[in-house]
Amino acid sequence: MTEWTRHHLYDLEDLSKEEIELILETARSFKEVSTRDVKKVPALRGKTVVMLFFEPSTRTRTSFELAAKRLSADTINFSSSGSALSKGESILDTARNIEAMNVDMIIVRHQSAGVPYILGAGVQASIINAGDGCHAHPTQALLDIFTMKERKGRVQGLKVAIIGDILHSRVARSNIWGLTKLGADVTLCGPTTLIPVGIRNLGVKVTHDLNDVLGTSDVLMLLRLQKERQQDKFLPSIREYARVFGINKEKLKKAKKDVLIMHPGPTNRGVELTADVADGEYSVILEQVTNGVAVRMAVMYLMSGKKTAE
Amino acid sequence: MTEWTRHHLYDLEDLSKEEIELILETARSFKEVSTRDVKKVPALRGKTVVMLFFEPSTRTRTSFELAAKRLSADTINFSSSGSALSKGESILDTARNIEAMNVDMIIVRHQSAGVPYILGAGVQASIINAGDGCHAHPTQALLDIFTMKERKGRVQGLKVAIIGDILHSRVARSNIWGLTKLGADVTLCGPTTLIPVGIRNLGVKVTHDLNDVLGTSDVLMLLRLQKERQQDKFLPSIREYARVFGINKEKLKKAKKDVLIMHPGPTNRGVELTADVADGEYSVILEQVTNGVAVRMAVMYLMSGKKTAE
Amino acid sequence: MTEWTRHHLYDLEDLSKEEIELILETARSFKEVSTRDVKKVPALRGKTVVMLFFEPSTRTRTSFELAAKRLSADTINFSSSGSALSKGESILDTARNIEAMNVDMIIVRHQSAGVPYILGAGVQASIINAGDGCHAHPTQALLDIFTMKERKGRVQGLKVAIIGDILHSRVARSNIWGLTKLGADVTLCGPTTLIPVGIRNLGVKVTHDLNDVLGTSDVLMLLRLQKERQQDKFLPSIREYARVFGINKEKLKKAKKDVLIMHPGPTNRGVELTADVADGEYSVILEQVTNGVAVRMAVMYLMSGKKTAE
Repeated sequence: MTEWTRHHLYDLEDLSKEEIELILETARSFKEVSTRDVKKVPALRGKTVVMLFFEPSTRTRTSFELAAKRLSADTINFSSSGSALSKGESILDTARNIEAMNVDMIIVRHQSAGVPYILGAGVQASIINAGDGCHAHPTQALLDIFTMKERKGRVQGLKVAIIGDILHSRVARSNIWGLTKLGADVTLCGPTTLIPVGIRNLGVKVTHDLNDVLGTSDVLMLLRLQKERQQDKFLPSIREYARVFGINKEKLKKAKKDVLIMHPGPTNRGVELTADVADGEYSVILEQVTNGVAVRMAVMYLMSGKKTAE
Repeated sequence: MTEWTRHHLYDLEDLSKEEIELILETARSFKEVSTRDVKKVPALRGKTVVMLFFEPSTRTRTSFELAAKRLSADTINFSSSGSALSKGESILDTARNIEAMNVDMIIVRHQSAGVPYILGAGVQASIINAGDGCHAHPTQALLDIFTMKERKGRVQGLKVAIIGDILHSRVARSNIWGLTKLGADVTLCGPTTLIPVGIRNLGVKVTHDLNDVLGTSDVLMLLRLQKERQQDKFLPSIREYARVFGINKEKLKKAKKDVLIMHPGPTNRGVELTADVADGEYSVILEQVTNGVAVRMAVMYLMSGKKTAE
Repeated sequence: MTEWTRHHLYDLEDLSKEEIELILETARSFKEVSTRDVKKVPALRGKTVVMLFFEPSTRTRTSFELAAKRLSADTINFSSSGSALSKGESILDTARNIEAMNVDMIIVRHQSAGVPYILGAGVQASIINAGDGCHAHPTQALLDIFTMKERKGRVQGLKVAIIGDILHSRVARSNIWGLTKLGADVTLCGPTTLIPVGIRNLGVKVTHDLNDVLGTSDVLMLLRLQKERQQDKFLPSIREYARVFGINKEKLKKAKKDVLIMHPGPTNRGVELTADVADGEYSVILEQVTNGVAVRMAVMYLMSGKKTAE
C-alpha cells in the first residue's frame, strides 16, 4: 500500500492519485469513529494542533477542531483579532512563534493565496491548508470526493458538473485537481465572466448552458455565490443568476434519477438552489459536512507521521 | 424512581414535579464532584457538546462549558459572530450543520423566545435552552430551586418573593413554573409597569409593595434590572426603583432571621441590592453560581441517555 | 530543598532567590515534556484553569493555555468582551463568580497595575499575574532568566543590558527584580524620557548611551517600543529611536562574540532590531517562547500544591 510521506497539505495539485486514495481509505475507517458512543481514539494524544484562522469561518474551524479532539489532540484557537498581528507582526513571525511552543500542526486559513506555502517553508510544524484566497481548499475537495465515492462506489468515469462562480472558487480549483486525477469527467458551468480563461488546460470541459450538464451529470456541485460579485460587475443581478444557473424542483426533473446535489455551504437558498432542493432527496449537503470531520481526521492522522490507513 | 425520557430541555413548564426532583437529586451527587481534588468523571467521555450562543454571556457559557468538561465531554464554542450566520444562513441551517458533525448536545442561547423549540424540531441532537428572549431559562431556575432546597431542606410551602422586572425576565418565568410545581408559595413584587397582566393565572400572588413580602418571605429573589428599562419608559428612574424595591441593610432588619437573598447575577450593586447585602450573611448569590455547575452537569448527564440519578 | 508555599504569583519582587531557583529547576524538567511524542503529564488532571484576559494577548494566553493543557488541566477562556464586565460588574465580582465554579487558578492580565493583588485578596483560587499595566509580568521575566541560565550556565555575575522603554515596561521591572536577586549585573539603557527617576534604587546602573553596554554585555534584552510613545511625546521619532538604540548587524560587530539577543516579542523589525539580527545567530527570541511554556507549566504545577521540583 502507498505510504504517506508528506509533511504539509497545500493542495490536491501536489498529490498523486494513490495519495488521494490513501486519504479517502483512511477517512472511511475514521467515519465510523464519529458514530460510536465514545467518539474518540487516542491516535494524536499529546499532540498540539493550532487553528490559525485569518478569515472568519466557524464551520470549517469547528470541523477541524472536532476532528482534532476526536483524535485526542490538544487544540488551540489562534484568531487574528486581538493577536500580535494587530501589532504589526508578520504572518510567518506569528507561525514561528506558535511553532516555538512545540506545536505539531497548524491549520491555516487566509484570504491571500499562497500563505500556507510561505508558512510551510518557514516552520517545521505540519501545515494544513484550510483555504487560501481563491487558490485551494484541499480538505473540502477531499470530503466532496469522499462523498461521491461513498454514494456512487467510484470516482473514475463519474460525470461531475461544477456550477457557478469558478473564477473565485478555491473549492472548484481543488476539486478539479482531485477529480481529474481520479479519472472523473468534469464539466464547469457558469457565466462567461466567472469562468477563468485557459481553465480547459486542467483537463475539464466548459459550458455556459446549464442544459448541457443537467441531464447527463452524476453530480451537480453548486458553488456558493458571493453576493458581492454583483456589485463587482461580474453579474447583471443575483436574480438573473438564480434564474439561469440556480437549481429548482422543475429543473431537477431533467436530471438523472440518481443525481447527487452537492454544495460546500453555507447555501444561499433561492440563489444556487431552492430550499426544497437543498433539503430534498438528491441533496447530500449534510453528508458532506459529516464526511468533512472524517476526512480531516484522516489528514491529521496521516500528517502526524502514521504512515498507512491502519 | 422516575426515569428520564426527555431528549430536549426547553423549560420547566414541560417537566413534571418528579422530573424536576430527579434533576435536583442528580445534581446533588454531581455537586460533590466539583469539590474533589480531581474534578472529573468519565460520564460523557467521547460526547460532543456545542455552545451555540447568540447573546453575549460569558458566565452562563462558562458554567455549561465547565459542567461539560467535568463530565469529560468535548466542547466547542460556536459563537454567532464570524460564523455562517453573518453570511445569511438561518439558525436552523446552522444547527443542522453542527449536528451533521455528529454532535450530541447543543446548548443554545438566543435573544428571541422560541428558538430552542425551532432547533429541537429540526435536529436530532439534544437541545438545552440556556435562555431564549424573555421566555425561559430553565437551568437558572433549577439552580435557584436547588439552592433553596439545599438551604431550607424543602421547597414545598416555602414563601418565595420574586422582586423586580418580572415582565422581561426569563429567570422569573422559569422559576414560577418550577416553584409552583414543587409547591412553593410564590409572590411577585415590582412596579405595575413591570408585572405582566394575567400572570396570576400561573398560580402566583402579585404585589407592588415590598412591605407585603419583606417580613414574611423565606427567600427574596431579586431580578437584574436592565438599565435600558428607564429609557424605554418602564421606570421613572433607576434611583426611584432602588429606593422602592432595592434591598439594603435597613430594610433587611424587617426580614426573617433566616431569609435567603438570591440574585441570578450579575448584580447592579446599589440598584437591586446594596453591596453589603450582596456580600452579607443572608446572600447565597455565589452558592447559586456553584450550584449552577452541578445542575448543568445533572441535566447534561440525564440528556445523554443515562436514565437515573445514579 | 526549598518548598513552595505561595498561593499567588504577583511578581518576582515577592520571591526569594531560592523560590526563583525552584521555579527554574522545575521548569527544566517540564521543558523536556514538550519535546516528547506525547506532550502531556497528568499533574493537573481535573483542575480548572481560567484565563481572565482584559488585554488582547493571543501569544501569552496561548502559552499559558498550552502549559495548562500539557499538565492535563481543563482550561476556560473568559475574555472581557461579551462578559458581565460589559454589564458593569466589577473585576473582583467577576473573579468571585468564576471562583464559585470551583476554579483552581485564575491567570489574569489587565491594563491596570495592581489588579492581580485585588483579586488575590478577594478570592481563594490561585492568582497568576500574566501582566498588569506597567507593573509586572513575572512569568516573562522567569522565562527570560531561564533562557539566560540555560545558555550561559549561570545568572550570577552575568552582565545584562535592558534596552529601550523602561518606563512603561512591566517586562523590565520584573526582570530587574529577578536578575538582581540572582546576582546579575543589570544596566538599563534608553532615552532619558523613558527611564524612570529613582530606578537606580533597585540596584541597577543606568546609561543613555548604547556604546556603554554594547561591548561588555553578555545579554542584550531589547524591549518592545510601543509606537504610541512618539505621539505621547516621549520620543522625537521612531526613526531616531531606531538609529540610536536599535540593534543592527553593524552595531553587533562591537558586541561580545557570545552575546545573547533577547526580546519579549512581538518585535518591531526595523525598530528595536533589524530582521537579520532577529533571525540571526545571536538571537534566542524563539527559545524564549519555547521556554515560556516550560516556565508556566512549572509555575502552575507549584501553585497547584505540589511542593518540590519532582
